[in-house]
Amino acid sequence: MNQNLTKRIRNAGLLEKVMSADDAVAFIEPGMTLGVSGFTIAGYPKVTAAALSRRADTGEKLDLTVYSGASLGDEFDGELTRKGVFKKRIPYQTNNDLRNAINAGKVGYFDMALGELPVWIKNGILNHIDVAVIEAAAIDEDGNIIPTTSIGVSNTYVEYADKVIVELNTYVPEEIEGIHDVFSPQKAPNTEPIMIIKPSDRIGTPYIKCDPSKIVAIVESDVPDNGRAVAAPDDEFKQMAKNLISFLENEVKAGRLCNPLPPLQAGIGSVTNAVLDGLQTSNFEHMTVYSEVLQNSIFELMDSGKIDFACATSLTLSSDVRDEFFKNFSRYKDKIMLRPQEISNAPEVIRRLGIIAINTVIEADIYGNTNSTYIDGHRLMNGVGGSGDYCQNAGLAIFITKSTAKNGTLSSIVPLVSHIDHTIHEIHVLITEQGAADLRGLDPIDRARTIIDNCAHPDFRPALHAYLEEAIECCPNKHKPVNLKAAAAFKKQTNK
Amino acid sequence: MNQNLTKRIRNAGLLEKVMSADDAVAFIEPGMTLGVSGFTIAGYPKVTAAALSRRADTGEKLDLTVYSGASLGDEFDGELTRKGVFKKRIPYQTNNDLRNAINAGKVGYFDMALGELPVWIKNGILNHIDVAVIEAAAIDEDGNIIPTTSIGVSNTYVEYADKVIVELNTYVPEEIEGIHDVFSPQKAPNTEPIMIIKPSDRIGTPYIKCDPSKIVAIVESDVPDNGRAVAAPDDEFKQMAKNLISFLENEVKAGRLCNPLPPLQAGIGSVTNAVLDGLQTSNFEHMTVYSEVLQNSIFELMDSGKIDFACATSLTLSSDVRDEFFKNFSRYKDKIMLRPQEISNAPEVIRRLGIIAINTVIEADIYGNTNSTYIDGHRLMNGVGGSGDYCQNAGLAIFITKSTAKNGTLSSIVPLVSHIDHTIHEIHVLITEQGAADLRGLDPIDRARTIIDNCAHPDFRPALHAYLEEAIECCPNKHKPVNLKAAAAFKKQTNK
Repeated sequence: MNQNLTKRIRNAGLLEKVMSADDAVAFIEPGMTLGVSGFTIAGYPKVTAAALSRRADTGEKLDLTVYSGASLGDEFDGELTRKGVFKKRIPYQTNNDLRNAINAGKVGYFDMALGELPVWIKNGILNHIDVAVIEAAAIDEDGNIIPTTSIGVSNTYVEYADKVIVELNTYVPEEIEGIHDVFSPQKAPNTEPIMIIKPSDRIGTPYIKCDPSKIVAIVESDVPDNGRAVAAPDDEFKQMAKNLISFLENEVKAGRLCNPLPPLQAGIGSVTNAVLDGLQTSNFEHMTVYSEVLQNSIFELMDSGKIDFACATSLTLSSDVRDEFFKNFSRYKDKIMLRPQEISNAPEVIRRLGIIAINTVIEADIYGNTNSTYIDGHRLMNGVGGSGDYCQNAGLAIFITKSTAKNGTLSSIVPLVSHIDHTIHEIHVLITEQGAADLRGLDPIDRARTIIDNCAHPDFRPALHAYLEEAIECCPNKHKPVNLKAAAAFKKQTNK
Repeated sequence: MNQNLTKRIRNAGLLEKVMSADDAVAFIEPGMTLGVSGFTIAGYPKVTAAALSRRADTGEKLDLTVYSGASLGDEFDGELTRKGVFKKRIPYQTNNDLRNAINAGKVGYFDMALGELPVWIKNGILNHIDVAVIEAAAIDEDGNIIPTTSIGVSNTYVEYADKVIVELNTYVPEEIEGIHDVFSPQKAPNTEPIMIIKPSDRIGTPYIKCDPSKIVAIVESDVPDNGRAVAAPDDEFKQMAKNLISFLENEVKAGRLCNPLPPLQAGIGSVTNAVLDGLQTSNFEHMTVYSEVLQNSIFELMDSGKIDFACATSLTLSSDVRDEFFKNFSRYKDKIMLRPQEISNAPEVIRRLGIIAINTVIEADIYGNTNSTYIDGHRLMNGVGGSGDYCQNAGLAIFITKSTAKNGTLSSIVPLVSHIDHTIHEIHVLITEQGAADLRGLDPIDRARTIIDNCAHPDFRPALHAYLEEAIECCPNKHKPVNLKAAAAFKKQTNK
């Protein structure tokens, strides 16, 4: 047996559970529900997915319901979609093939706030977890599991599953042990307070508690996370970052924000990565992060001494920086922490810390409703993800989008969004490359004018103002006037 | 001086601040921002409002911005609207004249989640509070204020206002002292955990801390709250209650809910009052309440031994039961508690306690989006109120509505709601007099079928199913198909 593998299995009794992935997936029966590790393409099972794919190749209909933390890599979500393995996926995805299968009505999908999922698992709201499949860096003397680059819902899946398959990943350095802080509140009525008052507070264990008798298989992997490349910031991204910084600076000056800033949260993706990147040029110091994902830009801000500490539930690095990151891991180890998503996305902590939440949307309307999931109201992109947990409870809920889409031919600011994920009650500030609109305390018509003048692209401002003035004129109610027909016509009129 | 009044002012130095309401309102200048006590027509200033009204009668343009806890009685919100006193009201209202003035564009209004307002006041997000006007039952030796039938944001207004006018209400028995528990977390970055693990936990003081030098006037009042009559439950309300009870019973049987139940929250109004009333006939015992308002039905459930303890931020009794309630106050005193709305509506506590949140909506769509504020998308009714705080964080977020409106001529279940306050991500269960639809974990199309079959009125089911099937057929995406034209046509087709 591979020595690098065996030394990571510190419970001698578990060595006999080491087997091939093909043998391990024999514990997974058709129709079962799996709870798998993985969050934003970090720390998900890879060789187990490949073994399931091979089973599907034999013609077996697996029909699996798979719950995860969030999005998984193409080796899982893409591959198993292409092989027709999924009956249903919960709670979030970003894979092109999976997205297409969902939109075709071939794979079921339930899109939900990520922080709520562990609570539902504990209370039996969703299916019983037959098998948990968890990527690990090691197993300790007592059978407890040291996770890799994410925690997500893994601790809860391990607790509630009948059986556990551990995918031991030797690519991830053993030194990762110690960055995890696993605290799992009991279910109501015995739920305890989450005693975090700053991002670096340690309240749990550095491992996922696991009864070793539950572990039915341990399979070896050395496959790194398939983190996608992050787009280099273009001029519009850079301008969005500048607008964010100048808004935050102004808030500090006005005494509405403390300095050092409250912890930052930023959603996954190139846009938020680029905007965080822009903070390099700001004067903010001693920043901290309380988020669901740590991306490239966070570590660059650590390197430059801007960020003191960052916690999240996943560590999502693009492939081009990953090896270098792990080579220099000791530089970051005492500045980062991974938590279960029940904690990283906990309303309690988000409200308490007064978090600055920065999330992207597809489109926003003039009143401040935002759409982050469905193009044209019916074509699913990803899912609401953690933005629900954060924006509803943040001290400052900021949504960002470019003012136009499709090479400037479509306005991202519209009279009425085609689908709503976050209502007017959950947005504080909208930022585009054009500027920032602070909506707090404003009446609907003032919100509309502020959004049009500060955030819409100048090419579309006349049409948006015309829509608004007509709605004010025609609608019998003048507080939040709407004109459904004109709103529907807006897209056509403004398509260049 | 009235002895009943003077003995309630236990700080001798403050006796000299007693004056007429007309003298007291001289501290209020045109254009000022007031922070006033009052929540769901409980504990609001009455004689001060009358004095402001008299000032308006002289032709003075007061242009006041008024922040409260929530809705105030007609003596305040109605009277001062009729006299043109308001420039802007925040954060909630239920008064007919005020509503009409807002819809006419004559009074500004910002509708927001109630639990967030105190946090905004502390951080200076809204206007500075020039004068706080607070109804009180007494002032203690140190100048601290004993509130009456609500707390709302009073503690924060007192803390941040330049001046405080106390309206000492001798109608409210002095025995009310002791039911309040005032805890006001510091603002970020120093916010503390809210250490409540059951509704009866006491974490603060029985008074609102107040520097006596801030109190510029004390005026006498003996006017009771103008609580509106509660409609007697009709057959449909009773059936909604039965559907709720049978849903909850089933959840307990399935192990998804503990018994005794987690604390209940129910929004203000006849519908929720009637539905709570229905719990009299259930087998649930030792129920508790963690809510924003305690209505008639809560005390009836205490009388019958069903409810052990109830806390909220207001005590809203209809006029017909109010005197009797205060006569028997000792029977309830150790079973109730009033908290600031920052605590009663705290995401932290709501999630921790796994609260069962029951709120009414105007309409729901087949995917589960709900509208609780705007008829036809533009005619404001009340506001989102506390439902935002609760449904986003509750263990069980239940929305209730009758399946039809306008004497059965309109379906409350529609293809697309005309305004969204709570998205598909924030509803767990929809209940009408027809039945209950448990939406947790369901794909959009399954949600639609469940809602139509269980919640829509049988008269409207064929048209709703026809809409859905056509949308599935015509929409290029099959996960959450929509057909905007057919949705718009639905209302006309189904109007009988």
